[in-house]
Amino acid sequence: MQYELYYWPEIQGRGEFVRLALEEGGADYVDVARRSERSGMGMAAMFRLMESAAHLPFAPPFLRAGGQVIGQTANILLFLGPRLGLAPEDEAGRLWVHQLQLTVADCVAEAHDTHHPIGSGLYYEEQKEEAHRRAADFTAARIPKFLDYFEAVLRRRPGGEWLAADMPTYADLSLFQLVEGLRYAFPKTMARLEPACPLVVALHGRVAARKRIKAYLKSKRRLPFNNDDVFRHYPELEQ
Amino acid sequence: MQYELYYWPEIQGRGEFVRLALEEGGADYVDVARRSERSGMGMAAMFRLMESAAHLPFAPPFLRAGGQVIGQTANILLFLGPRLGLAPEDEAGRLWVHQLQLTVADCVAEAHDTHHPIGSGLYYEEQKEEAHRRAADFTAARIPKFLDYFEAVLRRRPGGEWLAADMPTYADLSLFQLVEGLRYAFPKTMARLEPACPLVVALHGRVAARKRIKAYLKSKRRLPFNNDDVFRHYPELEQ
Repeated sequence: MQYELYYWPEIQGRGEFVRLALEEGGADYVDVARRSERSGMGMAAMFRLMESAAHLPFAPPFLRAGGQVIGQTANILLFLGPRLGLAPEDEAGRLWVHQLQLTVADCVAEAHDTHHPIGSGLYYEEQKEEAHRRAADFTAARIPKFLDYFEAVLRRRPGGEWLAADMPTYADLSLFQLVEGLRYAFPKTMARLEPACPLVVALHGRVAARKRIKAYLKSKRRLPFNNDDVFRHYPELEQ
Repeated sequence: MQYELYYWPEIQGRGEFVRLALEEGGADYVDVARRSERSGMGMAAMFRLMESAAHLPFAPPFLRAGGQVIGQTANILLFLGPRLGLAPEDEAGRLWVHQLQLTVADCVAEAHDTHHPIGSGLYYEEQKEEAHRRAADFTAARIPKFLDYFEAVLRRRPGGEWLAADMPTYADLSLFQLVEGLRYAFPKTMARLEPACPLVVALHGRVAARKRIKAYLKSKRRLPFNNDDVFRHYPELEQ
């Protein structure tokens, strides 16, 4: 089955959690909005499907798999996990992986709000003062809380290699991406905090070293971080 | 099976989405933190389980079902849906209901941030100025966007009674609660917006009129809204 991913073509954003799963799972997929409009794809195709799908998505990313259109990042991963070998077989295991994914998603939403604490429809420059305060709270209180949590989850695992199973699941890939994003956005904070969460850091390295992920990260399919994205580096937001 | 719900005992909060599902599904459940400590329950029991569960929750609510402890509101509903007759039988239908739930959850998180735009660890009074700006954006741009979305989903349904099936699912209960919360927090805004989303308003009424929900809403099990909750009514936040 060929999957079609629909997401903004110039950022990693929330779509990146899906891209990482598709890449690690060796899936056959097309990143539709990044293809040309001449070929019938591109952004136009994304907006067309977004308005016509029977199961209407609220926002990108969404995935087409045969006749199904699935929205909400964590929900797409819930669907892909068992199909790509990135979730346990049993229901309890799958729920646990999904729970971890939703916790990663909560942290991603908070990271976004450090540069958009007032409104996603306004520019950063219009909410810079508030962004200062929110980022100060995020780096002082929230990042440590999330990292401590994932460190504690790993500490309970025999071996502590992966969050939820003896193999990487989509939650591991997502934790990798969370660390990537936080390092890009808040490098000083992460340099300060990482020594206290060695298992999270090791997991990040383990994901980065996986054959398919490594090849993906070096490819043009991996977009660079930039300041139109969910994770943004504004040095003034870090003391 | 008796379910044990663990959530803050004095607010509806995110736990309310789980309570509504348990009530509509006629489940046998205990709201543990609201019971006395003398009986071995109460908040102490909640904190004990939160620190000892093999599948560590990041925050309340979490649910104990036999040997399983499940966290993250949407994930608890994913588990309960099929067991309580509040989700479709087929995988595609279940994913669609879950997608709708995650979109409700996004709106709930944004509603929370209208009074806590800077940090959840600070008091409202410490972030009142920023709250003004965020609430202005939320009422002007975000509530309409979410309501329009759910209205559009209902418009595509034959009959337009329920969001995803010929029967109510947990997403319908959650949309009811979202409308309840928004009416409490932003009554003027909702009075202005509701005429444009008649199907959402009708769904809200349909849920409220269901036998078990009606009995629940009248009971002491339903906590009143208050200003320690996710939805808060600060008149100064509405123009």
